[in-house]
Amino acid sequence: MAFCPRFHKAIEQIGSRWTGVIIRALANDVRRFGDLKHSIPGLSDRMLADRLKELQVDGIVERTVIPETPVRVEYRLTDKGCSLADVMAAITIWAETWVELDEPDAEVELCIE
Amino acid sequence: MAFCPRFHKAIEQIGSRWTGVIIRALANDVRRFGDLKHSIPGLSDRMLADRLKELQVDGIVERTVIPETPVRVEYRLTDKGCSLADVMAAITIWAETWVELDEPDAEVELCIE
Repeated sequence: MAFCPRFHKAIEQIGSRWTGVIIRALANDVRRFGDLKHSIPGLSDRMLADRLKELQVDGIVERTVIPETPVRVEYRLTDKGCSLADVMAAITIWAETWVELDEPDAEVELCIE
Repeated sequence: MAFCPRFHKAIEQIGSRWTGVIIRALANDVRRFGDLKHSIPGLSDRMLADRLKELQVDGIVERTVIPETPVRVEYRLTDKGCSLADVMAAITIWAETWVELDEPDAEVELCIE
């Protein structure tokens, strides 16, 4: 069958602009808003905030407030989000084989962990 | 490492709105423009045409003109496109497990082939 509504919804959830790299950073234990922003070149505060909200609505990310002084906020993948590991791995392998960069950089060889 | 530019480019290529379901339909041997449109509910002519053009630029889809009368045009996945099979399969499995539909329909159980 060509069309699958669950597949459609899934790829629209994880394929939005910036969403994939945010999930990948969270999977690599980057948990603070500032650290996420710092780890993803070109991502604005606004876009990161919007995407994190969408990912919470979709049940992929959870936001935890840690009652320290000052208060600390962390973002983590939920079980649903952690279950994207196979998807992320398959995309990484495909990317390494087939995707060419306009401006190759030295970090590329580190992408498969 | 949290950020991988190839991964980022890959997921932006395959994650654009409608792109995933178009690739999935092509993987299921739907090859004609009209058949693609018919197989994907809600997809407009304009959006399908734009996405097919982008997929050709990205080297994921090839367009073949078959010199019959009338001329016949077919779209097929390239080797790069066919290599997305593992990604599509991983997303399908994740979707079946984790993605809930607002309006479940009877076709859903047919999604894993």
